[in-house]
Amino acid sequence: MSKSIFYHAGCPVCISAEQDLVHLIGNENVEIVHLGEDQSQIETAEKAGVQSVPALLTPNGNVLHINFGAAIADVKA
Amino acid sequence: MSKSIFYHAGCPVCISAEQDLVHLIGNENVEIVHLGEDQSQIETAEKAGVQSVPALLTPNGNVLHINFGAAIADVKA
Repeated sequence: MSKSIFYHAGCPVCISAEQDLVHLIGNENVEIVHLGEDQSQIETAEKAGVQSVPALLTPNGNVLHINFGAAIADVKA
Repeated sequence: MSKSIFYHAGCPVCISAEQDLVHLIGNENVEIVHLGEDQSQIETAEKAGVQSVPALLTPNGNVLHINFGAAIADVKA
């Protein structure tokens, strides 16, 4: 895994954080996953340690939880 | 302001986040401020919107609060 993965759920704080982080890290280095639209990715995110969104999963496996947008439980339909 | 500023207070979660973010954004693009060691920067950080550390102040003035290490009040001596 060489890219970071940015998990979000479309909330305003997610989108603001997304734009900032994508700009800083570089668009080509970040994969963006919208957990609200792609619920199949929720289990993968949870296993990686994502507890809330927005969160950035770094290439070395650390999860940086950014602000507090929504608990992961709230993204599940 | 063209650099991001990373505020932290030396707690383990700060250091882990620092290493990840500095690596991703690029060392030359981030100024690192240790609020525990440089208390004169606390007022500046607060005025920029930093409420907890670690936090990343982006070049366009947004503050991304990362995880939750310590409330800004706890860093004050």
